[in-house]
Amino acid sequence: MTDQSRIEQALTDEVVASFAGAPDARMREVMDSLTRHLHAFIRDVRLTEDEWRAAIEFLTETGHITDDKRQEFILLSDVLGASMQTIAVNNEAYRDATEATVFGPFFVEDAPFIGQGGDIAGGAPGQPCWVEGTVRDTDGAPVPGARIEVWEADEDGLYDVQYGDERVAGRGHLFSDDEGGFRFWCLTPTPYPIPHDGPVGRLLNAVGRSPVRAAHLHFMVTAEKLRTLVTHIFVEGDPQLDIGDSVFGVKESLVKRFEEQQPGTPTPDGRDLGGATWTRARFDIVLAPEGLAEPGAR
Amino acid sequence: MTDQSRIEQALTDEVVASFAGAPDARMREVMDSLTRHLHAFIRDVRLTEDEWRAAIEFLTETGHITDDKRQEFILLSDVLGASMQTIAVNNEAYRDATEATVFGPFFVEDAPFIGQGGDIAGGAPGQPCWVEGTVRDTDGAPVPGARIEVWEADEDGLYDVQYGDERVAGRGHLFSDDEGGFRFWCLTPTPYPIPHDGPVGRLLNAVGRSPVRAAHLHFMVTAEKLRTLVTHIFVEGDPQLDIGDSVFGVKESLVKRFEEQQPGTPTPDGRDLGGATWTRARFDIVLAPEGLAEPGAR
Repeated sequence: MTDQSRIEQALTDEVVASFAGAPDARMREVMDSLTRHLHAFIRDVRLTEDEWRAAIEFLTETGHITDDKRQEFILLSDVLGASMQTIAVNNEAYRDATEATVFGPFFVEDAPFIGQGGDIAGGAPGQPCWVEGTVRDTDGAPVPGARIEVWEADEDGLYDVQYGDERVAGRGHLFSDDEGGFRFWCLTPTPYPIPHDGPVGRLLNAVGRSPVRAAHLHFMVTAEKLRTLVTHIFVEGDPQLDIGDSVFGVKESLVKRFEEQQPGTPTPDGRDLGGATWTRARFDIVLAPEGLAEPGAR
Repeated sequence: MTDQSRIEQALTDEVVASFAGAPDARMREVMDSLTRHLHAFIRDVRLTEDEWRAAIEFLTETGHITDDKRQEFILLSDVLGASMQTIAVNNEAYRDATEATVFGPFFVEDAPFIGQGGDIAGGAPGQPCWVEGTVRDTDGAPVPGARIEVWEADEDGLYDVQYGDERVAGRGHLFSDDEGGFRFWCLTPTPYPIPHDGPVGRLLNAVGRSPVRAAHLHFMVTAEKLRTLVTHIFVEGDPQLDIGDSVFGVKESLVKRFEEQQPGTPTPDGRDLGGATWTRARFDIVLAPEGLAEPGAR
């Protein structure tokens, strides 16, 4: 170890020691690890003072563009894969339980109840899509009465809350039936960019990355004594799957076939689509037991 | 490696790969290391989703309290020792060159010229203090004409710019003489807290750390073909040196004796202090050659 290396390590040790008196053991653990990684990053890249200043400015701008409607720090966490890594450590793989993915900023509490076979579109523009599947536990037993929340952007790439009016569209909930089954109408998902006119968009641009999210339909599934599942399904053949989802939400197991239906193909529930094309997809959900891992608990 | 560990590592690899197309090699290097350390932190502590949300809220608040007059992100960098670590990697130890420390947010361009023996106080309240020393290079040769900027808080712990009026006090500059010597009047430094009514203050409180900075006098010394030195001198016997400087700026070599002078002790330049006590300190400065290390350059 060189003198310089010893000086740098001593500084890290000094900062770590400053947290030793924290009354909360978990806080100590988190600050200790944060300090070590932050210092190691600065040392590894030999961060220049100009780069440090640029980082301060970047964070300042990110703070200033963030308000009640726009959360640029979540975007930043998303595009660095920090959101997905947090989800990974909190939803450890368990047998054949369905994989989780990012929650995103567009979930709304108290979305309308649509019931089995209902339509979440609520007038949002897009191609009709029939989704059906089952909810089971990891022993294969059907889970009746699971609450299934579904939400998505319209074909213009916007969620209802992004229009700034009072519309409620592209979201709803239903409950699995006695056999764990569910079925509903929605819109065939389409790709859309995350907001990219701020500092995070400039970062993506500087590194040559696409701001576009692979087309997806959001799910949140809750049932007693089972781990809550927050996930999406993605659309097989979506070119963005190859380009790369801007927030790293894609898991191979979540890519589903959305089968194109010719105009006039009879719908599963006899709904008359007036000769429009439509798609259908299947999503069989497996919920892990609750209380499996307790991340952060020591 | 467990399946879970493989899943988490694969995600990190995927995010790192997303930066592979960045046109700027240095940007690639920085984002690569940042991603690896950020993900390793999340994995090491098994960050919970509640903790992730708390972090997003903390950063949001830090952004919202930051404005033209207050830079809470710099404070955050300071209390995590990230500022000092950046200074360490940019001012590598070289022979007996004087050690650098944090710049802080209170430097002002175009502070008054005070000349040899002048007074930087400008009416700021505090005990008079005589500082003298020399500027030399690492071969021991005197450095004449070095620009010496000096600034400090008054005895109430405030810098002039914190009063919100137009006062200029507690700052000034002079040039070393033909033998590299310098001497000036200032105020005996006193400890003061960093602004601690915001999120950074709450963090320090939660971990039981003092927001107080050890008493110090700021220096910035620039001379042709020599590395610019940004540093402080600290006051031997200041109890805060044992408690811990809130931004980790203290280096043993920078702690100086501020000798208390009895009332009536003749001053070095014959100045009449009207029977007040005063102190005197010596600071011999050694500047490294410029262009020693070029952190960040690859």
